[in-house]
Amino acid sequence: MANDLLVQKVKTWIYEAGKLVQELEKNQLQVTTKSSRNDVVTNVDKEVQRFLVAKIESEFPEDKILAEEDEKSSLVDMSGRVWLIDPIDGTLNFVFQRENFAIMIGVYEDGIGKLGFIYDVMRGEMYWGGADLGVFCNEEKLEPPKNSGAKDGLWGINIGMYVQNVGNIQTIGENAMGVRMIGSAGLEFISLLKGNTIGYISNLYPWDYAPGVVLIKEFGFKASDLDGLTLAFNGQQHFIAATAQAYNEIMEIC
Amino acid sequence: MANDLLVQKVKTWIYEAGKLVQELEKNQLQVTTKSSRNDVVTNVDKEVQRFLVAKIESEFPEDKILAEEDEKSSLVDMSGRVWLIDPIDGTLNFVFQRENFAIMIGVYEDGIGKLGFIYDVMRGEMYWGGADLGVFCNEEKLEPPKNSGAKDGLWGINIGMYVQNVGNIQTIGENAMGVRMIGSAGLEFISLLKGNTIGYISNLYPWDYAPGVVLIKEFGFKASDLDGLTLAFNGQQHFIAATAQAYNEIMEIC
Repeated sequence: MANDLLVQKVKTWIYEAGKLVQELEKNQLQVTTKSSRNDVVTNVDKEVQRFLVAKIESEFPEDKILAEEDEKSSLVDMSGRVWLIDPIDGTLNFVFQRENFAIMIGVYEDGIGKLGFIYDVMRGEMYWGGADLGVFCNEEKLEPPKNSGAKDGLWGINIGMYVQNVGNIQTIGENAMGVRMIGSAGLEFISLLKGNTIGYISNLYPWDYAPGVVLIKEFGFKASDLDGLTLAFNGQQHFIAATAQAYNEIMEIC
Repeated sequence: MANDLLVQKVKTWIYEAGKLVQELEKNQLQVTTKSSRNDVVTNVDKEVQRFLVAKIESEFPEDKILAEEDEKSSLVDMSGRVWLIDPIDGTLNFVFQRENFAIMIGVYEDGIGKLGFIYDVMRGEMYWGGADLGVFCNEEKLEPPKNSGAKDGLWGINIGMYVQNVGNIQTIGENAMGVRMIGSAGLEFISLLKGNTIGYISNLYPWDYAPGVVLIKEFGFKASDLDGLTLAFNGQQHFIAATAQAYNEIMEIC
């Protein structure tokens, strides 16, 4: 299937998933905890994942899927075409704010990012793009932000990691112009794409970072684990992404 | 002047100030630092303040004004009618993001909050209201959010205070469902009004909290300095606001 046809198909699925979210959230959410009190999943996360998985499995039965909820959340390797799905990224925001969350899909081939989609449902903004396509917000092609240094702007940083000063990241925050925390990886990637922040550090699973990494790499950002190692697409990792300039500076101090 | 006429007048001024911001920000900003590298002011902050101060002084020459920039930033007492102005609340966001900032005005009489206005310029959302008026977003009257306990939702907390664990606030964050940080007091107050967060802790000046406090008190929130003392409207203070339930719980542990 030609790339642009695939893009259209995925966008259609995600818009439908967004409508599903908005229908379902009118009713009382069923919220259950996973690993801890703050790690929650709702019936909406599960239904959206089921919806997207069914679309992919029906259309591309040979492809592999790695997704946040239930039995889809582990995958042995990234060979072939792999779909990485976060049905509701920022579930706590979804539960308590009913905004500031995203539906996300990344498409990888043999471990190489091909397409990324981050849909900020409540603002009606779909950020999408991929290798050789560029990056778009809805139908508008975006320009890459300035390649700023680590001190020359705001950072998005996970508060738990920041308080524990993992990898000396308090130095990054103190030297920067400020630290922000949205509570959704998808919205943090959007913030990077818009130039609102110059770097992002958090503790992420592959479905949290796979879609965004495709997009920010198109804009020249660098991303890795916090020690500079290649992302593993396997389990949770301390993740960093930043403008090339900021990333290179940070790797010297972390 | 009747209260509703005063409200209409102030809203008109703030909408005009919002247009001024959007005109001025098309040009290169002139950014200068104040107390530190991260404490900045732009030509837009100054021009918006001049615009609003001129309106108030022309219309109400007897009134007092306490405003963020320059010679208006200190005031001996809160007797009589006092206007508290933050021309651009969230200046770092304004500089780096060109969104997530607010124009704010509070109107106090003999130290009692009468009217509050928080205008999220880029989203076109004016939150306003006051004693006996209720709280509105644009023309829509809002309902107060649930009176949640301190553990039952998200908090907005200043990261510097959080890292230093001022007043044992890490306990609040760890017991809550999560911590967020927007970088604008005005947007944090909007977050409280919408029920997106149940509490907010930061290090604020009177112009940062005066407009928001009028609005959240209409919805039953409590606000004080972090030790539970009455807000001084004089210099910077460790500020806390929360639902009545959460506030009462917190005052027992801080």
